[in-house]
Amino acid sequence: MSKTLNQRTRDRVEASFAAQGMMRTLGAELVALAPGTAEIAAPIRPETAQQQGFAHAALTFAIGDSAAGYAALTLMEEGSEVVTAEMKIHLLAPATGDRLVAEGRVVRPGRRLMVVQADVYAEGGGARRHVALLTGTMVPVPR
Amino acid sequence: MSKTLNQRTRDRVEASFAAQGMMRTLGAELVALAPGTAEIAAPIRPETAQQQGFAHAALTFAIGDSAAGYAALTLMEEGSEVVTAEMKIHLLAPATGDRLVAEGRVVRPGRRLMVVQADVYAEGGGARRHVALLTGTMVPVPR
Amino acid sequence: MSKTLNQRTRDRVEASFAAQGMMRTLGAELVALAPGTAEIAAPIRPETAQQQGFAHAALTFAIGDSAAGYAALTLMEEGSEVVTAEMKIHLLAPATGDRLVAEGRVVRPGRRLMVVQADVYAEGGGARRHVALLTGTMVPVPR
Amino acid sequence: MSKTLNQRTRDRVEASFAAQGMMRTLGAELVALAPGTAEIAAPIRPETAQQQGFAHAALTFAIGDSAAGYAALTLMEEGSEVVTAEMKIHLLAPATGDRLVAEGRVVRPGRRLMVVQADVYAEGGGARRHVALLTGTMVPVPR
Repeated sequence: MSKTLNQRTRDRVEASFAAQGMMRTLGAELVALAPGTAEIAAPIRPETAQQQGFAHAALTFAIGDSAAGYAALTLMEEGSEVVTAEMKIHLLAPATGDRLVAEGRVVRPGRRLMVVQADVYAEGGGARRHVALLTGTMVPVPR
Repeated sequence: MSKTLNQRTRDRVEASFAAQGMMRTLGAELVALAPGTAEIAAPIRPETAQQQGFAHAALTFAIGDSAAGYAALTLMEEGSEVVTAEMKIHLLAPATGDRLVAEGRVVRPGRRLMVVQADVYAEGGGARRHVALLTGTMVPVPR
Repeated sequence: MSKTLNQRTRDRVEASFAAQGMMRTLGAELVALAPGTAEIAAPIRPETAQQQGFAHAALTFAIGDSAAGYAALTLMEEGSEVVTAEMKIHLLAPATGDRLVAEGRVVRPGRRLMVVQADVYAEGGGARRHVALLTGTMVPVPR
Repeated sequence: MSKTLNQRTRDRVEASFAAQGMMRTLGAELVALAPGTAEIAAPIRPETAQQQGFAHAALTFAIGDSAAGYAALTLMEEGSEVVTAEMKIHLLAPATGDRLVAEGRVVRPGRRLMVVQADVYAEGGGARRHVALLTGTMVPVPR
């Protein structure tokens, strides 16, 4: 697997990301991309908080699932989109701080199924805490 | 298990729901509540869509997870909040239509852990389609 | 979906079950089969117990996963076998008694993926207790 | 966390392992133990195979779940046993070869819940292949 992504694949992932209304609503950004990995960050804000003021599990899920999905998309053939078949999230610690960063990666590539993982970290005050672990299955679909 | 919820528990759940910024951002509403079950609905809108225009998996997750969590909270003692320890979502069909409705329920109540499920349906044009199935573990935490 | 299974499909499932050394080792039997559902039972014995003398989680998993897989196989085309892509098990209560019974079913059939579930019950002394819930993804593979 | 396990904890884990009838039936052995990690191996044999002759998913699950559980037990207080609350397994590749080895580890220790993982490898003919990934939740119970 080459270490840098070709421009065509990068454009394809960025166009898909930009087309997601949810990512804009959450203030999420695609911050890194390489073959088999993707990183997405989002601010922790009252608009996306749960009842105790921490980042809502759905925000953590949103960027973790997307980071895992785009990690898979970097390895798929052109003309494919990727959809989540199933995803499990473990919430490890309260998501407090300034922002969340999700690091997605492909555990096992496959033509029909890709097993993916993502770790989500909460950053703030100079600290970084592991707040979630996601493991799931992505499937390619024709665009 | 009585079929109607006492007012104190209902108030507690509604206050918790109202305190979630994420639920407001997603336009979600708590539409039904009984001992061991909860129902949450949210509109399907461009702001919460994925790249193909369907409801984003994170919206489906958000209301499914919350419906399951509030179902658990109806069975917990006063002074407790509930947090998701882990949750798995299966995405069964594209979430298209006007709105999503999540029906959460407690599969196995327990003092330390509650096993919960939720089904999410997409409604529109007079039809209702099963779009997701969630299964997870909720834990009580002191408020 | 017809309510009775054609003989050819029944033969195919029974041949696959009989070919599983693990099912014999566990003393498991295929006790019911219909389109989209399958039921498997196994005795609770010291040889398949965990450290407290209850049925081992692996026994519960074995018959739950197989019941779900054979439920899927009843809906697949000839010439296919089925393999588990992923499976989650919730252990709800200690598996004590005389035998375990797993009831598998297809939640969402699909050509490339089938979402399946199974409930496992422990029976003994005239009682039946829900001890596990499994949810997973089956994929067809050429035989 | 110290790198070597005290003898009392090691004895406790080994006694628990020895008390599991299922581990004997599967021919499984506890091959390594350290604070927060455990390794279990089992032969791939016809008696524990599935219909295509590969190791049955239940064997892979059995040793993966146990390795993860004993990894958790090394971090628990005396007088506790550990039980699996839920476990998800991804089957990544056919489990062929001479034996399976499961490496379990604690991802997040906690007093009430421990998040654990295990990787399972199939060994044979000088090769080692990653065949499964498990992620789950363990809970301490009084012995």
